[in-house]
Amino acid sequence: MRPDTLGVIGLGAVGGSVAWQATAAGIPRVLGFTRRPVEGVAAVRAGAVTELATSARSVLRRADLVVLAAPPAATLRLLDTAARDLPSGAFCTDVTGVQAAVLNRARAVGLGDRFAASHPLVEVPGTGFAAAAPDRFTNAVVYVSPDGDDDATAREVADFWERVLGAHPVVVDADTHDALIAWTEHLPQTVGAALAHALAVQGPRGLTYPAATRRAVGPTVGTTEVWRDLLLLNRARVLDALEGLETSIGALRRALREGDAGALEAWLEAGARWRREASR
Amino acid sequence: MRPDTLGVIGLGAVGGSVAWQATAAGIPRVLGFTRRPVEGVAAVRAGAVTELATSARSVLRRADLVVLAAPPAATLRLLDTAARDLPSGAFCTDVTGVQAAVLNRARAVGLGDRFAASHPLVEVPGTGFAAAAPDRFTNAVVYVSPDGDDDATAREVADFWERVLGAHPVVVDADTHDALIAWTEHLPQTVGAALAHALAVQGPRGLTYPAATRRAVGPTVGTTEVWRDLLLLNRARVLDALEGLETSIGALRRALREGDAGALEAWLEAGARWRREASR
Repeated sequence: MRPDTLGVIGLGAVGGSVAWQATAAGIPRVLGFTRRPVEGVAAVRAGAVTELATSARSVLRRADLVVLAAPPAATLRLLDTAARDLPSGAFCTDVTGVQAAVLNRARAVGLGDRFAASHPLVEVPGTGFAAAAPDRFTNAVVYVSPDGDDDATAREVADFWERVLGAHPVVVDADTHDALIAWTEHLPQTVGAALAHALAVQGPRGLTYPAATRRAVGPTVGTTEVWRDLLLLNRARVLDALEGLETSIGALRRALREGDAGALEAWLEAGARWRREASR
Repeated sequence: MRPDTLGVIGLGAVGGSVAWQATAAGIPRVLGFTRRPVEGVAAVRAGAVTELATSARSVLRRADLVVLAAPPAATLRLLDTAARDLPSGAFCTDVTGVQAAVLNRARAVGLGDRFAASHPLVEVPGTGFAAAAPDRFTNAVVYVSPDGDDDATAREVADFWERVLGAHPVVVDADTHDALIAWTEHLPQTVGAALAHALAVQGPRGLTYPAATRRAVGPTVGTTEVWRDLLLLNRARVLDALEGLETSIGALRRALREGDAGALEAWLEAGARWRREASR
């Protein structure tokens, strides 16, 4: 769908980019709402919204399509408001990144047939509207998950990402998505965090760490609160992936303990092969 | 010391850089030896050595200082040759990066009083002489470890790194160094390798992984064989650090399993604080 009136709730790095790119694409009315006045002012100044709304409800009541782009916990709460205030015939999506939990909540509050979950695979260089960009979604993969088998809403939402924002939507069922993302996004983030935690709690002190250490820990992506909520929303899948990681670490420890050069080399080679294939 | 004749055995990314930077610094004779003719030709063409020797022994017999810059296993074997062929009054060091194991071997073969272990903290952009550079060690930290308390040789070697190659040598006992490096170099490398192993063996298949996944796995640094040998040479320390990592992962799994948002947030925050401090 190409909405006449798009609503965006939350004007940070992701929501601000949705609004901005839609405005740039010529959507006639782009209504934005944020609880943080400073972000709203920045979005208006950039021309990212055509109107700054004074409440989430006023956005929900007037838009053909609403993108919820608040942090995870706030997005879940907004689903309640959306269920009450979004007119029938209008659609709603989000950018949380954990599909099953969001879809379950949408269904529970009676928004199911008007809602599909979206997960744009974009990296943002910081937080807040200052990290928004009017071309953020061009050629980005966006996973869109329907509520169960009824994918008419998912198709409308996917069409919005593609036609208006120039993204490549991939419609995928929520369970497949959440398992995938546990391995490719939550596990990698968690591994870096575990290394940082181990270094913080048990590592050597008072040291300038080499670049290799900092690189392995990874950059700070998102806030502690957002990661806490994402990991909890996907916790069964994340626990599965962590168990997989511990199996791999266990095999390494066994090879090292036994001084088994052949097993150690095979273990390293499996990872090196993955690296080579993933970087192609 | 500023040698009149420097010997470098192994002319790859690190050894080639040692020779090249020493030649550029005006050391009159820089003798290089490599088992790989193609590297030798490249080093001669670049002017990185003043003479290409035909054997490791002929380098050892004629130099005031010899830097062993072969892969770990080959370096350990070269210590035997060095013990026989290095004249008394000459010195020897290496660039392996695990100090206790190398020093123990040097002592066992009777090279102890002529040898100190070196670990230059440099990142090389590849393998072979093609990845060498004539300014590789300028301002680099180089850990130098003496054999026991007798640090006269370590001081000579440290002085070479500083005066000839412009590095910042830090003399540190081998055990302290090896524990430090287990946490800051071997554990980070191992964590990335464990993630790659888990993704290879248990992860979802047939997928273009997002940039965040590839970043967490990390770049390919060195060969499988080199890492196999480094981890085995430092295995007691690496096993300690891995146990520390597993303790941290265990705490995360507990918080997730129990859905304990407070514990999860505290866990993430400890790592986030480390990240902020390490990036200052």
